[in-house]
Amino acid sequence: MVSVEWLVKNVTYRPHCYICFTWDNSVRFLFSDKQPFPRWDCLYWQLLEALRARIGDPTRFDDSLMQHLTLFTEDPEREYPNQNVVWEKFEKAFIAAAGLITHAPVLRDYIYKGLEELYYDNIMYLELRSGLSRTYELDGTIHDKVWTLKVFQEVTQMFVQDHPDFLGARIIISAHRLSEVKTVVKEAIQLQKDFPDVVAGFDIVGREDDGRTLWFFREALSLPAQLGATLPFFFHAGETDDEGSDVDQNILDALLFNTSRIGHGYAIAHHPLAKELSRKRNIAVELCPISNQVLKLVSDLRNHPAVVLMSEGHPLVISSDDPSLFGTSGLSYDFYQAFVGIGGLKANLGTLKELASNSIRYSSLPTNLKNKLHDMWLEKWDLFIANNTTKYNLE
Amino acid sequence: MVSVEWLVKNVTYRPHCYICFTWDNSVRFLFSDKQPFPRWDCLYWQLLEALRARIGDPTRFDDSLMQHLTLFTEDPEREYPNQNVVWEKFEKAFIAAAGLITHAPVLRDYIYKGLEELYYDNIMYLELRSGLSRTYELDGTIHDKVWTLKVFQEVTQMFVQDHPDFLGARIIISAHRLSEVKTVVKEAIQLQKDFPDVVAGFDIVGREDDGRTLWFFREALSLPAQLGATLPFFFHAGETDDEGSDVDQNILDALLFNTSRIGHGYAIAHHPLAKELSRKRNIAVELCPISNQVLKLVSDLRNHPAVVLMSEGHPLVISSDDPSLFGTSGLSYDFYQAFVGIGGLKANLGTLKELASNSIRYSSLPTNLKNKLHDMWLEKWDLFIANNTTKYNLE
Repeated sequence: MVSVEWLVKNVTYRPHCYICFTWDNSVRFLFSDKQPFPRWDCLYWQLLEALRARIGDPTRFDDSLMQHLTLFTEDPEREYPNQNVVWEKFEKAFIAAAGLITHAPVLRDYIYKGLEELYYDNIMYLELRSGLSRTYELDGTIHDKVWTLKVFQEVTQMFVQDHPDFLGARIIISAHRLSEVKTVVKEAIQLQKDFPDVVAGFDIVGREDDGRTLWFFREALSLPAQLGATLPFFFHAGETDDEGSDVDQNILDALLFNTSRIGHGYAIAHHPLAKELSRKRNIAVELCPISNQVLKLVSDLRNHPAVVLMSEGHPLVISSDDPSLFGTSGLSYDFYQAFVGIGGLKANLGTLKELASNSIRYSSLPTNLKNKLHDMWLEKWDLFIANNTTKYNLE
Repeated sequence: MVSVEWLVKNVTYRPHCYICFTWDNSVRFLFSDKQPFPRWDCLYWQLLEALRARIGDPTRFDDSLMQHLTLFTEDPEREYPNQNVVWEKFEKAFIAAAGLITHAPVLRDYIYKGLEELYYDNIMYLELRSGLSRTYELDGTIHDKVWTLKVFQEVTQMFVQDHPDFLGARIIISAHRLSEVKTVVKEAIQLQKDFPDVVAGFDIVGREDDGRTLWFFREALSLPAQLGATLPFFFHAGETDDEGSDVDQNILDALLFNTSRIGHGYAIAHHPLAKELSRKRNIAVELCPISNQVLKLVSDLRNHPAVVLMSEGHPLVISSDDPSLFGTSGLSYDFYQAFVGIGGLKANLGTLKELASNSIRYSSLPTNLKNKLHDMWLEKWDLFIANNTTKYNLE
């Protein structure tokens, strides 16, 4: 959510930040008021401040830290020869950043800073997938998920006060597919009840190819219906180009479990029935062009299956997936890729307008807030058009 | 149509074969009973027999000749960095081979040999796009297109006599898009009238990106209808991944000109209306997976737009485009690619059966011959199944 540069240049320079280099060439961070205990993955923790003092070249050192936190590289073809390699790095970078972000005082700044980066990219509303990690204090005190959710709510409210043309942010509570999904579903049901304004719904994340399909979790995913609870689903599904595989079939199960949107849905173009269902029920596909390129589903975006979807007027929204991991920020880069790479030569202002308003139309917001957001957005859009009409003398 | 190895190892070893190396690193061949005159592209002709005698290493020399006649290379990514480079080599190789194939005595052998290669690949019927080049004798005498067509007819009849389980072959008369298309259309109308059994129809070939869309030729293409003549069209169209370009629009014009099949039709997946027309009117798309890979439309076939078409049961036939240029032969390689790369993990024997019978269903043959061919094919198919059932003990 926040650029890696800020994490390294700001957060890792804060006092009491320890670092450890793992055997598999990754890093861990930990804030602590005393020397941290060794852990299974981290035998030797060093105080970053002391380490930096010993190292002659802090710029190069900081660059190396950033390398651990993103997938960015000058030569992706060589460094990431296949999907397995790039996904391994992807998951590693996630874990490496966790120790920084889940430090309670950092989290507040992180959320505010994240909203700020989006705001500067003209984003007016956010739906964020988050595992709501537990957070920790300097002395090792642990806060639970509710604490994290409350902080998210508070910081967002503060941000909206400071920026009245930003509507707000909601959370899609996400369970990693290798975790105890059933437990998270139960928690999510409760949190959705207690924080209906903040909690949009639920998703299962992590690489689909690692197994554990949506169908595998059918019992857990049936809980909300069984309990008569409301928990909208926003499933990742079909993030694959392997037709006929289990991951490919997730598309169908996502729809059968009444998902509200489909994350990626890369495979949907070759499922005629699923495509029809998705379209008729207004279940938008979240298109993440940069992510699909980085994670090696497609190299030339002109062959992205969304070309077919877009030509058919399929409900589509643009998402950045994990911008900080890809070395981007905000959403404009993905809009650019969708516009230039997927929209074809006849894409025009109308395409951009449609995609932007789709973000509102297919959001999880209640109707009154959708309308409010649409009015706020339309005002900005009209201004954007007016300014450019004047600027380029198009009257 | 015939493997390049045969052209080099057999044809270029025949007497009176001259070679010339052009300034743009290509070759020309010419059979002549005397030293050929210099031409604009060939100032210096050498007798191949004499040249080979001077060169120590005939194997390496022959390999270098083969290089000129195919696109095959160990490192395609480096050698063909983009579509322009690979298409240039493609057109060059075509021209290089012409001097060999259009020598009248070679042509007979070439056709017979070509049918033989297809026959050994279990192909039972052929529709060949051909420009019906004029041919030449040793003394420089020129034969016209009618002569070429007659030779094709005679050799095919001879081949069918020798191989009763081969049904025959027809020609789709092809004009290069940079040539005088109107003249060729007129000739084709006449030839179709005079040789209705051999001439299947008409097409325009050559790289679509070089300009001259189907719409550009609307006058020429309207001639058959104006003259009340029969000339079925088998248009190449939409061999591009550039949505919204002129080449992309060829898909629509091909259909509006009542094409009988669509060559490549790579772009059709993102033209919903064209796709519907093609499907309702049983206008099959000729899928050429190897060609699309070699000519750099798509690298990973799982992203080929035909994945969508196949999932929708769209009328599809498999074609090898120009196998000798790609270093393949017959049709099995393309069937393999379509089956493994495009069909997905659930492709099965039924997929192969459907694709094979589609070749008959969407052929240009009259109904009685379609039925005959289908019976001939079904007998072989049933035998294939029976043999494998026994072999692998699947009873």
